[in-house]
Amino acid sequence: MSNGIIHSNGNGVPAKSSGPVIPVASRLKDGRALAEDVWSIYNVANLPADCINLGQGYMNFAPPAWVKKAADEALEDVSANHYSHPKGRMRLRKAIKNQYGPLLNRDLDVESEILVTSGANEGMYSVFTAFLNDGDEVIMFEPFFDQYLPSIVFNSGKCVYVPLHPPSESKEGATSNDWTIDLEEVRRAITPRTRMIIVNTPHNPVGKVFTREELEGIAALAKEFNFLVLSDEVYDCLVYDGKEHVRIATFPDMWERTISVYSAGKSFAATGWRVGWLIGPKTLIAPTLAACTRIVFCSNSPLQEAVAGGLEQVKTRHFFETQVKEYEERRDILCAAFDKLGMKYALPQGSYFVLLDISEVVWPDDYNFPKSLDGRGRDFKACWFIAMEVGVSSIPVSEFYCAEHCSIGERFARFAFCKDNETLKKASERLQNLGKYLRKTE
Amino acid sequence: MSNGIIHSNGNGVPAKSSGPVIPVASRLKDGRALAEDVWSIYNVANLPADCINLGQGYMNFAPPAWVKKAADEALEDVSANHYSHPKGRMRLRKAIKNQYGPLLNRDLDVESEILVTSGANEGMYSVFTAFLNDGDEVIMFEPFFDQYLPSIVFNSGKCVYVPLHPPSESKEGATSNDWTIDLEEVRRAITPRTRMIIVNTPHNPVGKVFTREELEGIAALAKEFNFLVLSDEVYDCLVYDGKEHVRIATFPDMWERTISVYSAGKSFAATGWRVGWLIGPKTLIAPTLAACTRIVFCSNSPLQEAVAGGLEQVKTRHFFETQVKEYEERRDILCAAFDKLGMKYALPQGSYFVLLDISEVVWPDDYNFPKSLDGRGRDFKACWFIAMEVGVSSIPVSEFYCAEHCSIGERFARFAFCKDNETLKKASERLQNLGKYLRKTE
Repeated sequence: MSNGIIHSNGNGVPAKSSGPVIPVASRLKDGRALAEDVWSIYNVANLPADCINLGQGYMNFAPPAWVKKAADEALEDVSANHYSHPKGRMRLRKAIKNQYGPLLNRDLDVESEILVTSGANEGMYSVFTAFLNDGDEVIMFEPFFDQYLPSIVFNSGKCVYVPLHPPSESKEGATSNDWTIDLEEVRRAITPRTRMIIVNTPHNPVGKVFTREELEGIAALAKEFNFLVLSDEVYDCLVYDGKEHVRIATFPDMWERTISVYSAGKSFAATGWRVGWLIGPKTLIAPTLAACTRIVFCSNSPLQEAVAGGLEQVKTRHFFETQVKEYEERRDILCAAFDKLGMKYALPQGSYFVLLDISEVVWPDDYNFPKSLDGRGRDFKACWFIAMEVGVSSIPVSEFYCAEHCSIGERFARFAFCKDNETLKKASERLQNLGKYLRKTE
Repeated sequence: MSNGIIHSNGNGVPAKSSGPVIPVASRLKDGRALAEDVWSIYNVANLPADCINLGQGYMNFAPPAWVKKAADEALEDVSANHYSHPKGRMRLRKAIKNQYGPLLNRDLDVESEILVTSGANEGMYSVFTAFLNDGDEVIMFEPFFDQYLPSIVFNSGKCVYVPLHPPSESKEGATSNDWTIDLEEVRRAITPRTRMIIVNTPHNPVGKVFTREELEGIAALAKEFNFLVLSDEVYDCLVYDGKEHVRIATFPDMWERTISVYSAGKSFAATGWRVGWLIGPKTLIAPTLAACTRIVFCSNSPLQEAVAGGLEQVKTRHFFETQVKEYEERRDILCAAFDKLGMKYALPQGSYFVLLDISEVVWPDDYNFPKSLDGRGRDFKACWFIAMEVGVSSIPVSEFYCAEHCSIGERFARFAFCKDNETLKKASERLQNLGKYLRKTE
């Protein structure tokens, strides 16, 4: 492309060389957005054709027929095929108010306290756009949902990490709540530039459901240092064993500083519909709406109507209660396979992920790994090895840590159990073949 | 909220006061995103209940039944209800390749040269995220689609404006192509920080279809000064009177520096589906994909399938040819009303907007306008007056100019003709009542 000649124009402005065209914005590199991401490496296209995909967190079953029916009806309505209000369609905002008002102990205002977004992901992105100035800091717990990092960096923010501490290696029968936080570590992470903290409960990938005490401790710090809480509760409908999902926005003086994030994709097995929503006070929702309106203008209309139809019926159909039981069964099928192998994991109390301790998995020294794994953690190799030799894919957990701390995650692989029972049973059978690759303990 | 006490923590970091909570990011104010926007002021909710809405550019008719059928089918497929690849669903990328490859004279690579986005709007937003560093400049023609400004500013870019020159006031029978560009003005707008130019053809709100000559002039400058061309062609299927839609990406050496933007919403009367796509070289699409993947992760799946189904059938159904004739008829109904009134406008050769010269419309000195119009251009008052007194809403064009140049736009109101014939006929009848409010000429 380059001819080596530097042009200049009539105004004396030197022209750039016509070299290999257009440099990309530095935020892409800073936001880890150019490296091959974990989802691409462990994409089905790279794995054996019959590999069972417990990697990415989407269901291999459909949304309920009665929710899809609402989508069909919407497609028959002219206005439901055209732009929605950027706040979201009124029918959906009303359905959200009716469902979430009682959970948040508030009479929610559909005009100012609810914002429908193009998936929870875009909703959180809009929050960062609305509230982060150059160098503003966002505290998050590690491991973290991998999209947080680039979303914050793209909006000129800085990520600050506080660890979730895994159960000790010797712990038998651990649950996800044996991953613990240390509030003193949170306090030490706070600086004058701290703008917000992300609390993800139920947690991806740990499955931890934060306790009331833990959330009270976080809330106290948010009030003491006046920062915002982004409460990522996209798995709020997937909490098991009767455990309580506590909403930090309901705590005293916390409504004013909390944006709660929800997801129709997770709640209705419709991850491809891209409908999520934010709930918070007008002071936080209005700027987020201003950002969101420019980023996507509005979210797709027919599937907003469908989700409204879904929320309108969940109570009479006892849908979420039934769904929780189904997910508990799925979880238990998979975890039984790990038990049988004698491998350690923390039983998840929420979300649809389980972290398996893969530190005992060993492979031949001369095993042939692809180049894309060079320089990545031990867990990248373990996940690859398990997918190739056993035929079940998972996701290495070091990807959910910042570069400096990724060695902590190397002990774990994330398995998703948002799959039908038959698939999980088949995966469980295959996983037994892992037995011969486990380090022999005395 | 504030108790006036300043806390400090154990690390000697002074805590912020717990005052009226969280300040918003400065990009919102800089990006004009907090002021009440024109769409809210002229929202149907603020206008008389029976006002005919020719303001916002969405159709009052449905997408074709055979395209909706593809959506219904997709909803029946498990995988089409779950995450798509961030690049877009393969069926849609293949349909785009088949439709646009011949138009762009290229054998498009579905893996690296096509990116499906959550509407064209989010696609362009992703381009700004991918390529703008702090203070990088983007040239655009005024009037401009109002979302460009905040989208650029949110991504730390700077807007640089070059006027489209309106036809002289005395010109009879003008077309949208009598709005002209001056390439010397474009050249003078170029600086070492120029990163891209936006070319919107067919143009919103002018309806201008850029000529080959004009585009060649712009292309020459893009090559001389090595900047990117963002070619916003969302109305490419809506070009009238046999006029040719020229694609700048097909010019010599321009493929490498052009991203072309398209919209299913505009092409299939489905503005609420939020499906658009970008076409360009791998060097430009890969960084944009990296940005888009973090902003929305992926676009909604069922409606991607529907659009694929639509594109697969347009040729055998001669859909776009028929649709152009229908839009020509719609345009002509509306313009006949302006002719009958003796009012001036430039006949649009593309898009579905017509700019009416409203400088002859007068209203009583003591007419009661809402406070939201204080400090806005004369056109804001004219549009309000027409909506209230005549019952047809439109959009003031000064909104499509930067603050410094908005007086140029005050001469015009934008009317959308993406409405069924009956609605347009009714609007035309009502508009005749405007006759009595026109300044008497000799």
